[in-house]
Amino acid sequence: MSVNRLIYLPLGGAGEIGMNSYVYGYGPAGKERLILVDLGVTFPDMDSTPGIELILPDTSWLEARLNQLEAIFITHAHEDHIGALGHLWPKLRVPVYARRFTAMLGKLKLEEQGHPSSAINVVAARPETVEVGPFKVQFVPVSHSIPESAALVIDTPAGRVVHSGDFKLDHTPVVGEGWDDARFSEIVAEQPIKALMCDSTNVFSLYAGQSETTIREPLCDLIKGHNGLVVATTFASNVARLKTLAEAARAADRSVCLMGRAMKRMVSVAQEAGVLTDFPSTISPEDAVAVPRGNLMLIVTGSQGERRAATAQLSRGKYLGMELKKGDLFLFSSKTIPGNEREVLKIINNFSQMGVDVMDENGGKYHVSGHANRPDLEHVHRLFLPKMLIPMHGDHRHLREHARIATEGGIVSDIVTNGMMVDITGDTPKVVDYIETGRTYLDGLVLIGAMDGIVRDRIRMALNGHVTVTLLLDDDNEMLGDALVELLGVPEQGRGLPLVDALEKELNKFLNGVGKKLLYDDEKLEEALRRIVRHVGIEEIGKKPEVTVVVSKLTDE
Amino acid sequence: MSVNRLIYLPLGGAGEIGMNSYVYGYGPAGKERLILVDLGVTFPDMDSTPGIELILPDTSWLEARLNQLEAIFITHAHEDHIGALGHLWPKLRVPVYARRFTAMLGKLKLEEQGHPSSAINVVAARPETVEVGPFKVQFVPVSHSIPESAALVIDTPAGRVVHSGDFKLDHTPVVGEGWDDARFSEIVAEQPIKALMCDSTNVFSLYAGQSETTIREPLCDLIKGHNGLVVATTFASNVARLKTLAEAARAADRSVCLMGRAMKRMVSVAQEAGVLTDFPSTISPEDAVAVPRGNLMLIVTGSQGERRAATAQLSRGKYLGMELKKGDLFLFSSKTIPGNEREVLKIINNFSQMGVDVMDENGGKYHVSGHANRPDLEHVHRLFLPKMLIPMHGDHRHLREHARIATEGGIVSDIVTNGMMVDITGDTPKVVDYIETGRTYLDGLVLIGAMDGIVRDRIRMALNGHVTVTLLLDDDNEMLGDALVELLGVPEQGRGLPLVDALEKELNKFLNGVGKKLLYDDEKLEEALRRIVRHVGIEEIGKKPEVTVVVSKLTDE
Repeated sequence: MSVNRLIYLPLGGAGEIGMNSYVYGYGPAGKERLILVDLGVTFPDMDSTPGIELILPDTSWLEARLNQLEAIFITHAHEDHIGALGHLWPKLRVPVYARRFTAMLGKLKLEEQGHPSSAINVVAARPETVEVGPFKVQFVPVSHSIPESAALVIDTPAGRVVHSGDFKLDHTPVVGEGWDDARFSEIVAEQPIKALMCDSTNVFSLYAGQSETTIREPLCDLIKGHNGLVVATTFASNVARLKTLAEAARAADRSVCLMGRAMKRMVSVAQEAGVLTDFPSTISPEDAVAVPRGNLMLIVTGSQGERRAATAQLSRGKYLGMELKKGDLFLFSSKTIPGNEREVLKIINNFSQMGVDVMDENGGKYHVSGHANRPDLEHVHRLFLPKMLIPMHGDHRHLREHARIATEGGIVSDIVTNGMMVDITGDTPKVVDYIETGRTYLDGLVLIGAMDGIVRDRIRMALNGHVTVTLLLDDDNEMLGDALVELLGVPEQGRGLPLVDALEKELNKFLNGVGKKLLYDDEKLEEALRRIVRHVGIEEIGKKPEVTVVVSKLTDE
Repeated sequence: MSVNRLIYLPLGGAGEIGMNSYVYGYGPAGKERLILVDLGVTFPDMDSTPGIELILPDTSWLEARLNQLEAIFITHAHEDHIGALGHLWPKLRVPVYARRFTAMLGKLKLEEQGHPSSAINVVAARPETVEVGPFKVQFVPVSHSIPESAALVIDTPAGRVVHSGDFKLDHTPVVGEGWDDARFSEIVAEQPIKALMCDSTNVFSLYAGQSETTIREPLCDLIKGHNGLVVATTFASNVARLKTLAEAARAADRSVCLMGRAMKRMVSVAQEAGVLTDFPSTISPEDAVAVPRGNLMLIVTGSQGERRAATAQLSRGKYLGMELKKGDLFLFSSKTIPGNEREVLKIINNFSQMGVDVMDENGGKYHVSGHANRPDLEHVHRLFLPKMLIPMHGDHRHLREHARIATEGGIVSDIVTNGMMVDITGDTPKVVDYIETGRTYLDGLVLIGAMDGIVRDRIRMALNGHVTVTLLLDDDNEMLGDALVELLGVPEQGRGLPLVDALEKELNKFLNGVGKKLLYDDEKLEEALRRIVRHVGIEEIGKKPEVTVVVSKLTDE
């Protein structure tokens, strides 16, 4: 007899901020029916992933179980929850469910990659229910920094699970539904919560989170207090913030111009979805050029210092006809995500050179976070009173701290990281398997595995440079001329000779002395030449370049 | 008739944090006698300087004027003030002056690079005076986060200049001389200050700085409150902090073990120089292994997440026989320098996985900065009452803000950045020249110019990968066989064919169709092949790899 079990398996997001992707399963062990919640991306950096466009979850475990997979649910339209959909959906090809605004953005993502947008189904908020296999899933509105965020109520034969998605306790979020305790009290009253999988991003923020409305007045005062051009940046998807900023601009008799593709798209989709109403009228960049600086406000993309976004472009000079100058104000209505400090500081210093005054979030005066802080999380714990709490969406340190405060509050809690499959049928989570999880890279147009060695080779070339060695052999493996060396990303002058000369000298000395046997063995020959390059490298320039050896054999035709 | 002038020219540090290097000159225009204050480094990062060991100032302007250069003065032994000495002194070869502790570390740097340590002269604090050319220079003790920091009083025929070095207003700095207003009042009373060149690092810190002594009690309490092993990291050169940490450990009945070469060297040099007394006795890592965890404290290097330092090593597993585990405490008695967040967070998450509790500076409870905050700077402005203030050591935004508050306080101030030569003979600084300043990279063992293109090529290979194309021609420029392709750091599979096949197909199609004229022109041929690789790259993988083309000509022997 096989016993059904309820399992939870994070493929991404548990042990990192970003790349959210969580599997739930119900059924006999190894034959569970599966659903996937979120399919997000995380962002590359030069240190570990040079040249990569996007980092996606490794879905190979799911791909090997396509016959068990029922559907994908997307909680909200942030890239770290939906960003991989266009790239990975073709590998999964199951129906996708999301609320209207999220679905509209998801459809655009599928279309951009040439896939049928009909894969995405629009679901209304609870009580509407999606039944797939043994799961009944409802979308429950929560407040967050993007419209129509949802927690999922996932009913299974083993009990009711709540997957929080990203949320904050904002009763007056400017755009969309506010947080509502009653909405969740009702859910808990209907059926007790077996497990709460809960956002951990802000667990180290010790004070209760602030509402989006609290920054309206300070923003109005700030903008009114300036005479020059005012430019503000924030996350393109933070539609409420865009509205607050635009309204503050209008209150200061300024025309509003949105700059940046992502931002304009967000506003138009939000309007089309009906979640954004009464957005002040905007003018085009072409028209903005003619408006006096004191009567204009730009709202632009690139709050994280992204090289090609409007903020970075403006910090380097003219962008879409606009140029900042002395007496202008640039406002970061945003927080710098750890790791982006260097790029953001570069921009601030560029603005400083132009004489532009730069204002940051100013300790929460001009920006509030979209995630629940520690007291808010504790409130939610008490509200839901789950049998168990599994922290998700956070670095290991966040998950650990979140589990600690839950346990302290009397709730069973454990740290479950990417690749850990836990059985949550009983009263406590039990680890039943470890899945090989990794990352998939979008490299240009191509998906590659994080472990394919491609990025490793690039990092090595970045650190050590590259040397090409070519050698020509005839039919009888006699050398035809000397080995030749080409450098790229390597100093030309060593401590003694020019490096090319030093390398060719040692390589040819070796080749002229070597037995013919080695010349017959391509692999050994290449390795020997590589070793010489590295050795000379250390001697002459103090480092070992990466080496490509090309041995050409000239055959009689 | 030639009129003497007093000039100031930053070569580094003005428009950046780090790489401090400032020239002063006095004499007829273009024939000034010169001194150099500090010769520091800044640190590379993967984004802009992959593979580089150190970034040094470009001293070529000085090298072209060696007959004018009198001496080098080093204010203190932080790497961003002395780090380039071993590498650049051989290009300048003038006497170096520093206080004892700084001189001892400087001598080690020269010796490591095989240069005579006798170039460095030990100077006592004021009233001892170094006379070089038209300059009389005195070292005035200031408090900072390393022993024997000094401001320089530079007397010239045009008046008295004070070069602040790095400093804070700490009257009780645990190790070395405290800040003393009277010391400077006397200097000002002797002769008014013509110009104050002043540290700007902490101008955005709005509260008065705290003394090193304020963290002693909290540290004692923290360490006493833990039962497991306690490990603390801070900057190796912060000898006062090492003493405070070690004393706190002893107060909690813990043996102290220092880990990390830099730290042990700092302590022993500080003891030898006589600036560090009563440092608690320490035990070796070999002995530490045998001490019960509750009776041991490690003080280790690597507070900025440096990959090879003790902190990072401990976060990856065993280091010198020690291994952290559940219940241990790891304390960052330090601030994370912007740009290092990612590496430090990686370490914290590793510790979290081990069950280690991690504590950061906790809002200044366990760490205080070594630089003067805004109110401290304002105090110094009032104390010195200089005719003009030129902010130094800071990003552009720091210099701008510092100049702003000085001006607000009624002092003439202007922003002078790297390469701007200003004449400060009169009452206001006047820009008289712009010098081409750049950066020199230490790459392995070799000094290269930042603009040599070597690092640019590496970055391109990191972003795009590398393709080698080899082609063999005979005497008559007939092709001998097909062109061959090798990939490194490039996806193997394109959208259609394997990438090697797609590239070879297009390359050989072109080569077979091309006229013999092109085969005679190496440069044009290589460029044509490069273009094909880039074109196929875009088509197949969405990116343009870097290309090395090797055309071998087989000549009759």
